[in-house]
Amino acid sequence: MAERFGELAPPARLLLGPGPSMVHPRVLRAMASRLLGHLDPAFLRLMDEIQEMLRDVFRTGNQFTIAVSGTGSAGMEAVLVNLTEPGDRVIIGINGVFGARMATIVERCGGRPIRLETPWGRIVEADAVQQALTRFYPVKAVALVHAETSTGVRQPLEQIGPLCQQHSALFIVDAVTSLGGIPVEVDGWGIDACYSGTQKCLSCPPGLAPLTLSDRAVEAIRRRTTPCQSWYLDLSLVADYWAESKRAYHHTAPISMLYALREALRLVLSEGLQARFERHGLNSIALMAGLGALGLTPFAEEGHRLTTLHCVTLPVQVQDAPVRAELLQEFGIEIGGGLGVLHGKAWRIGLMGESSTQANVLTLLGALEKIFLRHRWITQPGIALQAASRTYFGHGQQVPV
Amino acid sequence: MAERFGELAPPARLLLGPGPSMVHPRVLRAMASRLLGHLDPAFLRLMDEIQEMLRDVFRTGNQFTIAVSGTGSAGMEAVLVNLTEPGDRVIIGINGVFGARMATIVERCGGRPIRLETPWGRIVEADAVQQALTRFYPVKAVALVHAETSTGVRQPLEQIGPLCQQHSALFIVDAVTSLGGIPVEVDGWGIDACYSGTQKCLSCPPGLAPLTLSDRAVEAIRRRTTPCQSWYLDLSLVADYWAESKRAYHHTAPISMLYALREALRLVLSEGLQARFERHGLNSIALMAGLGALGLTPFAEEGHRLTTLHCVTLPVQVQDAPVRAELLQEFGIEIGGGLGVLHGKAWRIGLMGESSTQANVLTLLGALEKIFLRHRWITQPGIALQAASRTYFGHGQQVPV
Repeated sequence: MAERFGELAPPARLLLGPGPSMVHPRVLRAMASRLLGHLDPAFLRLMDEIQEMLRDVFRTGNQFTIAVSGTGSAGMEAVLVNLTEPGDRVIIGINGVFGARMATIVERCGGRPIRLETPWGRIVEADAVQQALTRFYPVKAVALVHAETSTGVRQPLEQIGPLCQQHSALFIVDAVTSLGGIPVEVDGWGIDACYSGTQKCLSCPPGLAPLTLSDRAVEAIRRRTTPCQSWYLDLSLVADYWAESKRAYHHTAPISMLYALREALRLVLSEGLQARFERHGLNSIALMAGLGALGLTPFAEEGHRLTTLHCVTLPVQVQDAPVRAELLQEFGIEIGGGLGVLHGKAWRIGLMGESSTQANVLTLLGALEKIFLRHRWITQPGIALQAASRTYFGHGQQVPV
Repeated sequence: MAERFGELAPPARLLLGPGPSMVHPRVLRAMASRLLGHLDPAFLRLMDEIQEMLRDVFRTGNQFTIAVSGTGSAGMEAVLVNLTEPGDRVIIGINGVFGARMATIVERCGGRPIRLETPWGRIVEADAVQQALTRFYPVKAVALVHAETSTGVRQPLEQIGPLCQQHSALFIVDAVTSLGGIPVEVDGWGIDACYSGTQKCLSCPPGLAPLTLSDRAVEAIRRRTTPCQSWYLDLSLVADYWAESKRAYHHTAPISMLYALREALRLVLSEGLQARFERHGLNSIALMAGLGALGLTPFAEEGHRLTTLHCVTLPVQVQDAPVRAELLQEFGIEIGGGLGVLHGKAWRIGLMGESSTQANVLTLLGALEKIFLRHRWITQPGIALQAASRTYFGHGQQVPV
């Protein structure tokens, strides 16, 4: 039979949306390696290496540190369905799409979400968490989104861990858009369960959810009186496959994705976490300076903005969808539109992992300038690039011509 | 920081276990293509193409035909958690590990599994299904494993669909180890929900679960009075992403895995389903002839044996684990051990997709002969290869020297 569809030939894209981010060629190459069986001793060694590197990236000594066989949302579901038993109260900070998603999952487990609703763009205050912990005692867990991908808010976490411990609650953190881009201190901040996705600041294709559990969280799963509602994501079963002493078959691991993750983690640790955070910081300042010159304003409250994902609101005259279409079709650049209430009113620009480079910031700003000039939304060429270059020069770096 | 772990260098393996199977280089190459965003128009076109090709492979016109973002077991869970509501009775044929797993999942949904227990190695009889349908009426669904990977049994399905329709029950089929290797006629057999894995007869790396639902099954999901317990696998939400008219973001699709699946499906359809089934049939006969000469006996009842996965029991003197270790270390060949009650007593040899070739059959038999001779379990060199070659000659093919 003739082949109905042609050879795979994805067009070139500069991925500056909320994920996936750009992937290093070494990661793509690793992913294309010949397969091993999921119980092959050579593959089990790779899993050990992945666990070791994930511990470094999560900044934890947690034995239970794995990659769940699904995308970031599977990590969220895995944590919540394993830690929530019917009737459990879970305090959830809701200031964007992903907090709301956590509440939905807790409800589907038969848990009782206590919604700490906060306006989009603002952080959840530690005081509010403390009051809820007291008022609703006993509470099974507090769940917060570290990096709210829908708003660009960076949630402070340092004070929450101790509060949770004082009230015998577990501390759950969504680090999907933060891990590998800004500091995530699982042990230092007293986090009991933390999950992420591979396709954000780790710059690995989507398909896995790194996840770590403290001993307290593992104990809570062990003490469950009802089985976890998910078999596929039942971490007590998944753990028996990842545990060096057992290696019990649960489901076939996504071999090639784990190859990719291993290579991505090697790159992350080879750059060094601190250097990586600084790189994300510098490029973020330059991007925001350039976007500001174009009249775009940060949505998240000052002092709590992510350097990995930038949510900016549009001036009234700027049309959302047409500009994003021009960026994609003319320049091959992907940025994200607003989610939920921000639909049509904001953009989400990711500078995550491999995507966070000076060249990418300048490429995007140059493209936006061209579009904005064409539509007469600005009149002066070069203003965005100029604003961004001041950032780079201020740090003693040369802007490429 | 220096890199702690070296470059990824998986050893060469001939994958003849219960999966993953060998992957064509074109699939590996496609998987390593540069990424697109999951909402990029170019990526959405790829998804349409994947859906179209999956419909051909499933032999269905079902609109709802997608790939779930998880391995085969995620496909099982997706079907069962979406179709089972609390209190629903589901008849499940249990004659191996995977039927038992279905019952576990149905229980975790609050459903009431009606277990049609049948001895391992035997099929579930249509009469037994009919009696259960009558006795336990109304029943939400009947679920059968088409290809029981733990026993090598091929379950007849032709009579079950009409029985289900007469009793207003949905018909669920696990085609993980059959799709693309032996006929699966979703529409022809009246199957309402069918799922598979990519890493078996489709010869794509593990990480996706192809899944198709009939309109009856979609309607059953739409009529649910309780939300599906899984958010990640909620097919009513997942459908809104795959539907051409909506494309609503649910979770980030595993882009690279979908590249791989597209290429694997092109290869399957380019060979042609019928030619593919015949190839699996021929190599299976040759393998079984050779294994028989070594004293290994098929576990599944005669007339109901798979040509994709061969479960054979070992003569008493043959040791399971040491031989599999020798195969792996000395010859780079992976075969599977027995699961559950067959642990230590049987092997599971897969000839699935790219793994099903004459060269692979002869390579494995040659290696086994060498090991069996060394242990003095056989005395005559060449008996297994000779038995296999008679099959190939009988079909007019040349055995490579």
